[in-house]
Amino acid sequence: VLPEEDLKKKIRHSIETGKPLRVKAGFDPTAPDLHLGHTVLLHKLRHFQELGHQVIFLIGDFTAMIGDPSGRSATRPPLSKEEILKNAKTYQDQVFKILDKSKTEVRFNSEWMEKMSAADLVRLSSHYTVARILERDDFSKRYKAAQPISIHEFLYPLVQGYDSVALQADVELGGQDQRFNLLVGRAIQEAHGNKHPQALVMMPLLVGLDGVQKMSKSYGNSIGITEPPSDMFGKVMSVSDELMLSFYELLSSISAEEFSRVKADVKSGAMNPKAAKEKLAHEMVARYHGKDAADAAQAEFNRVHGKKGGIPDDLPVFKFSKGEKCRIDKLLVETKTAESNSDARRKIEQGGVSLDGEKVTDAHAEIPAQGERLLKVGKRHFAKVVFE
Amino acid sequence: VLPEEDLKKKIRHSIETGKPLRVKAGFDPTAPDLHLGHTVLLHKLRHFQELGHQVIFLIGDFTAMIGDPSGRSATRPPLSKEEILKNAKTYQDQVFKILDKSKTEVRFNSEWMEKMSAADLVRLSSHYTVARILERDDFSKRYKAAQPISIHEFLYPLVQGYDSVALQADVELGGQDQRFNLLVGRAIQEAHGNKHPQALVMMPLLVGLDGVQKMSKSYGNSIGITEPPSDMFGKVMSVSDELMLSFYELLSSISAEEFSRVKADVKSGAMNPKAAKEKLAHEMVARYHGKDAADAAQAEFNRVHGKKGGIPDDLPVFKFSKGEKCRIDKLLVETKTAESNSDARRKIEQGGVSLDGEKVTDAHAEIPAQGERLLKVGKRHFAKVVFE
Repeated sequence: VLPEEDLKKKIRHSIETGKPLRVKAGFDPTAPDLHLGHTVLLHKLRHFQELGHQVIFLIGDFTAMIGDPSGRSATRPPLSKEEILKNAKTYQDQVFKILDKSKTEVRFNSEWMEKMSAADLVRLSSHYTVARILERDDFSKRYKAAQPISIHEFLYPLVQGYDSVALQADVELGGQDQRFNLLVGRAIQEAHGNKHPQALVMMPLLVGLDGVQKMSKSYGNSIGITEPPSDMFGKVMSVSDELMLSFYELLSSISAEEFSRVKADVKSGAMNPKAAKEKLAHEMVARYHGKDAADAAQAEFNRVHGKKGGIPDDLPVFKFSKGEKCRIDKLLVETKTAESNSDARRKIEQGGVSLDGEKVTDAHAEIPAQGERLLKVGKRHFAKVVFE
Repeated sequence: VLPEEDLKKKIRHSIETGKPLRVKAGFDPTAPDLHLGHTVLLHKLRHFQELGHQVIFLIGDFTAMIGDPSGRSATRPPLSKEEILKNAKTYQDQVFKILDKSKTEVRFNSEWMEKMSAADLVRLSSHYTVARILERDDFSKRYKAAQPISIHEFLYPLVQGYDSVALQADVELGGQDQRFNLLVGRAIQEAHGNKHPQALVMMPLLVGLDGVQKMSKSYGNSIGITEPPSDMFGKVMSVSDELMLSFYELLSSISAEEFSRVKADVKSGAMNPKAAKEKLAHEMVARYHGKDAADAAQAEFNRVHGKKGGIPDDLPVFKFSKGEKCRIDKLLVETKTAESNSDARRKIEQGGVSLDGEKVTDAHAEIPAQGERLLKVGKRHFAKVVFE
């Protein structure tokens, strides 16, 4: 929260006067499928909404036309008007699984930006300096690396800042990577005579399944809120113990006290991390698909991955001629559990392959080509191999 | 000329088709009084006009609202609409002493810029990169020196470049300090699908009376084209021999051959530099005030500064009581040839003061307070001092 004192003052004033705060959050209609990463912010908006404040869901259709380079190393291509409206529609359909539609003010920044003249934009851009905008992390990196930054990209944060003027925002919510843009909003409000510019509430970024980069569809490490129950359940179960705690903190609806208890219990060993993950996975699936779907997904998961190393019923069977020896990497390719020899070797070297429950570490190992063998690759791929 | 080949092609094409070239020159209506520095460019425009091409005198009223930082170390303040129109009027009154009004297309860039929307300006600014614009000498210096550059200043060269699109300019004229802006014009024309963008004709900058900085009213080193004949004549006579040759080259209407002869003759001593200056001063005064005024200014100048050290008729006389001694610096103050003791000392130390034709070098010197003395301060201030 920045500045914390400003937010406190605004909340006190709102309580005293009974006037709800205007709480803005801007969304680019560039990624039509919401994933759990987006929901961190949406839930915080919902908290404000539940407390009686006015939440403004702002769709940056004008700014999408510009293309925002935040956190990117390359210029994002501008979207066509048609794509933008289609994406915005999908966005809203999904967003109201979390926000209360009847209490949400949905706005598009084209409403005021399309009326703005070139002269107005010139005046707007006189309120900020090149040096300050080049301080923004991604611009600074691209400038130093001699990667091109188009001048229109400099206009993006200014337009976003002007949205806060147009909407008379008291609070703006955003990800921690939006810190710079949100601060510009304060500066632009001040330049327009607002003596009590917006307070900023910045949410931590949810890390994706890889445990490294922020969750993003383009990094392939995301859990979409419209994904089928079994996929969603399995993906939550696949995260590391550490990431599981971060998911709890940013996604779960459990209270802060309960979260502290889960954290302590997992650490002390009083709670099995797998049990904690199951609880979280169940909560997430129930949130987006209902309790029944969550129960079913959990049962199916446990059947496949249960304590007995449960093997699915529809196990594929591959038959080979009996012989002396067989190379393990070839076997993966033949059973389609690897796409190529090199893929097979990589999977073995990463420790994801086991034979009859024993991990295989040497990609060139030869095994006796006799009897029945159970091959497991990754967490969910099984094959029964029969030499006859 | 840049690129020279482009200009040649355009001229050849114009001769073949009989279609005049569209020759643009942009002026900021910020300095309402034209000085000789401005006329260098205006005369080149007139040459194009005399050859039958279409000269466009573009008044950057929209860009003046932005404020151009070219060659400045600080942001130039934007002008009000009222000031701009008043300045533009004064400008035109003076410009048509050089250009043929009936053959000049006068345009204001507000004509197309006021119709431009913020979205159009965003698209325009997508055609150029931050790195290229930061290469501009003055931006680069200011950025390195951590002096603020407002983002709207980056829009200036783009708008100026777009003017060339709107005007379908074949050639743009400017000072050598406008090289960057003129090149942006080419780039913006190309971005708008023009395969034959404008050729650039850049004129050298006229150095001011100080012999160091470019002529500019704000540096106090200029000769205005509306200044009285005697001032104009005197100022031209005051320049160094070297600067005089530069003035000949950039201002005089003498042919290139005649200029070479003047240059050689002054160098060899065949021509007295003072005679060459007189010829030039006469030409300048005649150009803006007519031949009679030039003759009169020359006669007056020679009477005051003639070979005999001619003293003007209306010499002021100051009477003092006879005495032992008198401090020379005090005498300057008393005769109003210096404004203060420190001003007097500076003038003496700079070697600009003589008494009875002999240079005074010691500011604290004491002279006998008797008889009549002739005091000369600078080139044109005389005082007769009488001790009685």
